[in-house]
Amino acid sequence: MAKRLVPLLDRVLVKRLEAPKSIGGILLPESAGTKLNEGTVVSVGPGRRDKDGSLIPMGVSTGDKVLLPQYGGSEIKLGDDDYFIFRDEDLLGILKD
Amino acid sequence: MAKRLVPLLDRVLVKRLEAPKSIGGILLPESAGTKLNEGTVVSVGPGRRDKDGSLIPMGVSTGDKVLLPQYGGSEIKLGDDDYFIFRDEDLLGILKD
Amino acid sequence: MAKRLVPLLDRVLVKRLEAPKSIGGILLPESAGTKLNEGTVVSVGPGRRDKDGSLIPMGVSTGDKVLLPQYGGSEIKLGDDDYFIFRDEDLLGILKD
Amino acid sequence: MAKRLVPLLDRVLVKRLEAPKSIGGILLPESAGTKLNEGTVVSVGPGRRDKDGSLIPMGVSTGDKVLLPQYGGSEIKLGDDDYFIFRDEDLLGILKD
Amino acid sequence: MAKRLVPLLDRVLVKRLEAPKSIGGILLPESAGTKLNEGTVVSVGPGRRDKDGSLIPMGVSTGDKVLLPQYGGSEIKLGDDDYFIFRDEDLLGILKD
Amino acid sequence: MAKRLVPLLDRVLVKRLEAPKSIGGILLPESAGTKLNEGTVVSVGPGRRDKDGSLIPMGVSTGDKVLLPQYGGSEIKLGDDDYFIFRDEDLLGILKD
Amino acid sequence: MAKRLVPLLDRVLVKRLEAPKSIGGILLPESAGTKLNEGTVVSVGPGRRDKDGSLIPMGVSTGDKVLLPQYGGSEIKLGDDDYFIFRDEDLLGILKD
Repeated sequence: MAKRLVPLLDRVLVKRLEAPKSIGGILLPESAGTKLNEGTVVSVGPGRRDKDGSLIPMGVSTGDKVLLPQYGGSEIKLGDDDYFIFRDEDLLGILKD
Repeated sequence: MAKRLVPLLDRVLVKRLEAPKSIGGILLPESAGTKLNEGTVVSVGPGRRDKDGSLIPMGVSTGDKVLLPQYGGSEIKLGDDDYFIFRDEDLLGILKD
Repeated sequence: MAKRLVPLLDRVLVKRLEAPKSIGGILLPESAGTKLNEGTVVSVGPGRRDKDGSLIPMGVSTGDKVLLPQYGGSEIKLGDDDYFIFRDEDLLGILKD
Repeated sequence: MAKRLVPLLDRVLVKRLEAPKSIGGILLPESAGTKLNEGTVVSVGPGRRDKDGSLIPMGVSTGDKVLLPQYGGSEIKLGDDDYFIFRDEDLLGILKD
Repeated sequence: MAKRLVPLLDRVLVKRLEAPKSIGGILLPESAGTKLNEGTVVSVGPGRRDKDGSLIPMGVSTGDKVLLPQYGGSEIKLGDDDYFIFRDEDLLGILKD
Repeated sequence: MAKRLVPLLDRVLVKRLEAPKSIGGILLPESAGTKLNEGTVVSVGPGRRDKDGSLIPMGVSTGDKVLLPQYGGSEIKLGDDDYFIFRDEDLLGILKD
Repeated sequence: MAKRLVPLLDRVLVKRLEAPKSIGGILLPESAGTKLNEGTVVSVGPGRRDKDGSLIPMGVSTGDKVLLPQYGGSEIKLGDDDYFIFRDEDLLGILKD
């Protein structure tokens, strides 16, 4: 089974954060494992072309922490891992500490 | 948890005004805490590109008081704070005293 | 509360005319206070950009008497006054005596 | 009340022809006063801009007899007179004797 | 009543062929008078402008025999004659013997 | 009745293949005469213009064997023969032995 | 029957992977033969033209292992073999070991 995905056009491969299952040993049944609207960029495509054929630079790069839209994105499996693919223009913003 | 959000493309991060809960000590039950159509710009994205790839300047900047459309905008949480993300072109106008 | 609104992009702030409540002292119950399809331009935005990024000149300016479309426009409140916001391209024409 | 309307963009102000109420004194009850698909151009706007910002010349001018589409057009009142506003591109053709 | 119509933009005035009512004297009740998908071009407009404002040449000219699409086209009356108006781009092809 | 059709714009006149009614003398009732998704190009139009007015070259030419989309295409009759008209961009591919 | 298909425009001919019917001799009834979201590129078209008429380079080439979208693609038969046709821009990414 393939290990790596090189996204096409302006697609972004994102590993989504999950709500911690427990904090300080205390189990958090309710929100445990729910998907947060945050994720880390795993890999980015080359970008889409504008109407004159030149590449539009991507807004995010590998390693960025990003805020995800509530809807959209395609869920995919690479080996046993779950990932999401978003279009660059659908990502809301880059999270900075 | 991340503290700051750098919006992508032509998105604008807005802190929405809430109707005052009380005026001169008098509680305003009814409209208390309702969201007004006004807010303050917290941060702006770099802007969207026009069809030839050049950046379209944003219409608002950090600190502006803006009039919000009745609909639209995505509600997000950054830490414990609530914000809204609007597209630059959806904001109605800049409020001046 | 803010006094002035600077519309964004190609938006136009309009004060709508109301049908006179009485003429020569005679009350006009029926159409009294109804909104006419006419208004006065209070302020205009800088204009929208065309596909190449240059500003498209606005068709109306502050003080013009304009004919309003039957539908569309967003109703807003600035302090205690009611206004409407239209897009420049939705206004039908400029009324001249 | 304003007498004249200067249409905006590519709008055309048209005075619509009405079927004659009587011919040679004979009343034509049925089609009397019905709106024909013909009209006379009263005034034209400056035109719309193409994507590069240059004005697209209008296809009709004041005084032209035009064939109107079956649907579309906004009915307006200027003083006591009824007119229609069409977009230049919706007019079907110019009628010549 | 006007005799001639100069179509606007990329419109084409077409006189539609009708199925012959009889062949060699034999009446053809069933398809008699039905509209065929063929017609003759009576007059053409100047053409539509492309995005840069230059005229797009028309595909047909006066006198061409054309194959008409099954749907579309506006039926109009000029004096006592029936015609159809099609857009140049909706005509399927030019019929040659 | 006209013999030849010169398609307009980017249209393609196609003669559709039919499933053989019998193979080696054995009648094939079921699929006999059904339309296959294959056909031969009879004639092509000059092509469509791109936004700057230059002709976009056609992808197929007369005599090509083409794979047809499952849906779309207009069925027409030229004399007693049945043909289909497709847009160049709707044809899936060219079949080569 | 034709052996080879040259896709038109930006279409991509893909041979879809099927889930193995058995692993190590053990039959996998349930997912046996189901279509995976992976496939191999068999042939690619020349590409689509951008608005100025220049060809937009394809993102994939013959032999690439690609990740397919969950929906879309047209199923076709070439001789006895099943293939799928996708548009270049609908493929999600290229799978690398």
